[in-house]
Amino acid sequence: MNAPTLVCPPILGRHLLLDMQGVSAALLTDAALIERALHDAARVAGATPVDARFQHFGPGLGVTGVLLLKESHISIHTWPEYGFAAVDIFMCGEARPELGIDSIVAAFAPASRSVRDAARGPAAAGSA
Amino acid sequence: MNAPTLVCPPILGRHLLLDMQGVSAALLTDAALIERALHDAARVAGATPVDARFQHFGPGLGVTGVLLLKESHISIHTWPEYGFAAVDIFMCGEARPELGIDSIVAAFAPASRSVRDAARGPAAAGSA
Repeated sequence: MNAPTLVCPPILGRHLLLDMQGVSAALLTDAALIERALHDAARVAGATPVDARFQHFGPGLGVTGVLLLKESHISIHTWPEYGFAAVDIFMCGEARPELGIDSIVAAFAPASRSVRDAARGPAAAGSA
Repeated sequence: MNAPTLVCPPILGRHLLLDMQGVSAALLTDAALIERALHDAARVAGATPVDARFQHFGPGLGVTGVLLLKESHISIHTWPEYGFAAVDIFMCGEARPELGIDSIVAAFAPASRSVRDAARGPAAAGSA
């Protein structure tokens, strides 16, 4: 039971790392808006939230939040003092994380952004 | 207030992506052990948990968990059927995420693993 099976797929999930710069500080301190944006991203990507936690560090300060998904997670950390936010969308199965990225970008309207795409699974661990 | 300031550092956090293959299924289904391992990793890295959520998908099935940190987050998703786990340690400030990785690897003893190191911040977003 402890050995990996032979049918293990080499990639189990896609993990997109979104960095956004030049975002309105008003958006980056609004925990309710941020929570809505993450739920919207999960919905358009076809993922199913199973839990959510958001932490607002105080008036004018940043927000940390995570949706636990049946398919993995979406997280956000905001730095309103720098107009910056880091978002992760990690999804396995049939979900389409790139649609979640589009939804987040539309909600936050950054001046610039980047998306890095990390395949997660045994292939990344060097044994597939 | 909405424009990024001139003193924004180009890198705000380090995000380490750890993929582990060849892990005992018994470890990967043990939600209490997994939660302890994530707390231990936060402690040795010098980070401060502010909240924690763990979801066990049922006997013999995987666990999803996240620690929200003052410094960002640690997450884990396990696939016991494949002997695989994906861990993220994302920390800003003075914390040392690489020490957290060492702690996680010691706890799960994978047959193989990889660590990818993603700098998060305005430099990644293409505007620094």
